[in-house]
Amino acid sequence: MSDHQDTASTSEFDRETAVVPVGESLWRAEISAGWNIGNTPNGGYLLAIGTRALSLALPHPDPLTVTGHFLARSKKGPMEVEVKVHRLGSSTSTASATMSQGGEPKVVLLATFCDLSKANGVTRHEEGPPLLPLPEECVAFSGMPAEAVALQARMQQLFAPQSAGWARGELSPISDMRGWVGFADGRAPDLLSLAFFSDCFPPAAFASMGAVGWVPTLELTVHFRAKPSAGLLRCAFRSRSITGGFTEEDGELWDAEGKLVALSRQMAKVLRRG
Amino acid sequence: MSDHQDTASTSEFDRETAVVPVGESLWRAEISAGWNIGNTPNGGYLLAIGTRALSLALPHPDPLTVTGHFLARSKKGPMEVEVKVHRLGSSTSTASATMSQGGEPKVVLLATFCDLSKANGVTRHEEGPPLLPLPEECVAFSGMPAEAVALQARMQQLFAPQSAGWARGELSPISDMRGWVGFADGRAPDLLSLAFFSDCFPPAAFASMGAVGWVPTLELTVHFRAKPSAGLLRCAFRSRSITGGFTEEDGELWDAEGKLVALSRQMAKVLRRG
Repeated sequence: MSDHQDTASTSEFDRETAVVPVGESLWRAEISAGWNIGNTPNGGYLLAIGTRALSLALPHPDPLTVTGHFLARSKKGPMEVEVKVHRLGSSTSTASATMSQGGEPKVVLLATFCDLSKANGVTRHEEGPPLLPLPEECVAFSGMPAEAVALQARMQQLFAPQSAGWARGELSPISDMRGWVGFADGRAPDLLSLAFFSDCFPPAAFASMGAVGWVPTLELTVHFRAKPSAGLLRCAFRSRSITGGFTEEDGELWDAEGKLVALSRQMAKVLRRG
Repeated sequence: MSDHQDTASTSEFDRETAVVPVGESLWRAEISAGWNIGNTPNGGYLLAIGTRALSLALPHPDPLTVTGHFLARSKKGPMEVEVKVHRLGSSTSTASATMSQGGEPKVVLLATFCDLSKANGVTRHEEGPPLLPLPEECVAFSGMPAEAVALQARMQQLFAPQSAGWARGELSPISDMRGWVGFADGRAPDLLSLAFFSDCFPPAAFASMGAVGWVPTLELTVHFRAKPSAGLLRCAFRSRSITGGFTEEDGELWDAEGKLVALSRQMAKVLRRG
C-alpha cells in the first residue's frame, strides 16, 4: 500500500489517513475533523489509519481480519500508532496497534495480514450481493444535517429508498441500512478503504427506530475478502438484536462487479437521547 | 468468575481451563488433550482459557466482546498467558492476552469487559431463536470418529437431522450446522463457557460440502449478551461465502429459555484434503 503513502496525493482519504514513521514501530497520524460525526472521528476512519500503520509494519500486503476496540473518544489532532508484531509467518502475520492521543490509548487493533493474491482455495457463494435499486433510483440523503456529519462531504452515498425513510418518520420493520458508496473525490476503493466503508452508514437501528440517539462503536471487526474493482460499493448493514443496549451490526460490502469484498461486524451501544 | 477457579472442581471445563498466577500479569494454564480435534486443542477451548485469565485481571466481571487470533498450533501442556491492560474505564475495561508455549505466541486475544447486570438499555429482537427440533428429535452424532475428536466426550451435543446428513453423503443445500449443546458432566453453561461453545460444532461448511478437510480457525470473535440459564444451549452456525479458501462462520447461541446469550463470528480457512 506504499503508493497510498504519498501525502501530496489529491485523495482526501489518503492524505488524511497518512502515517509517518517517528520511531521504532511508532507512527504518527494527524486526525482530521473531516471524517467526524458530531465532534467525534468516525470509527472506520480510525480503523483505516491503524490498519495503514500495520500494513507498513508487516511483510504481508493485505489485511485479512482486523478488529478494533474503541476505548475513548478520539479528537482532531496528532495520534500516535504503536505497532507490536506477534508473529511473522510464511502465509500470514499478526500484530497489534495501539492508537494514542496525549499518551491516552484511544483505539487498540488486533490484525492478521496475508497476501490475498495467493488465496487460491475454494470459492463458493451461497448468496449473491444484497438487493439494491440502481444508483439512479437511490436517494442521496443521510437523514442527518450536513453540518453535524462532516463525513458526508467525503462520500458519494446513495441510500435504498427503504433505508432513507426513517428521517421522515417512515420506519422500516427491520434494522436494515443499505446503499451505494464511494469517495466524493472519485478515489477508487481498495482494501484499506473497506475499513472505513464498513462504518460509514448511519446505524442500521435508525431504519426501524429512528434516530434514537448516539450509537457509538465499541468494537469493529472487518474480514477482507478481495480487492474491490473501481466504482461504487454495494453495501448492506443489519442489526437483528439489541440486548440491554448492546447491538451487533453486520455489514456486507460488494464491489461494482458484484464481488464480495468485505464482511464487517461491530458491537455498538444504543444510547437513547434524554 | 472466581468461583470457577477452584481446581478441585468436579467440572472438566473448570479444571481444564483453570489459570494460576505466576507473576505480574502472568498466568499459567495446562492445556488438556481432552478438548482436541485431531492433535489440536479446539480454538474455543483456548479462547475460554484466555478469557478466564482476562476476567481475573480486570475489574469488570463479564466479557462483552472477545477476539482471538490463532497464530500457531497449540498443544497439550503448559501455556503462559500474559495480560496487558489497555484501559480501565468506569463501565468497561479493555485488555490483551498473549498465550504462549515455549516462548512462542500461539493465540492473541483482545477483549472488552463490562458488567452485564448493569446493561439496562433497550432490548429488542427482530428474530427469535433458530428453528431447531426438540432435543429428543435430534441426533447424537458428530459425523467424526470419536477417537479423532476427543472433544466429543466432553459434550452432550444433539444435531438437527439436517445438520447430521453430511457424514452419510446427504449434503444440505446450505452450510448450516445447528443443534443443542451442553457439557457432558452436567456443568451449567455460563458466560465463560460460551467462548468454548462458539466453536464446538463441526464446520458449517461440512453440511453442504461434506468433510472436505481441515478448517482451522484463524480468528474468532464472540459477543456476549447475557448469562445463560441452566439447560442445553440452542445453537446455529452458518457460512455463506468462501473466497479463495477463506470463510466466515456466524454463530448464534440461545439458552434453554429462548434468550440470546452470544453471537460469534470466526474466519476460518477451508483446506481441502489432498
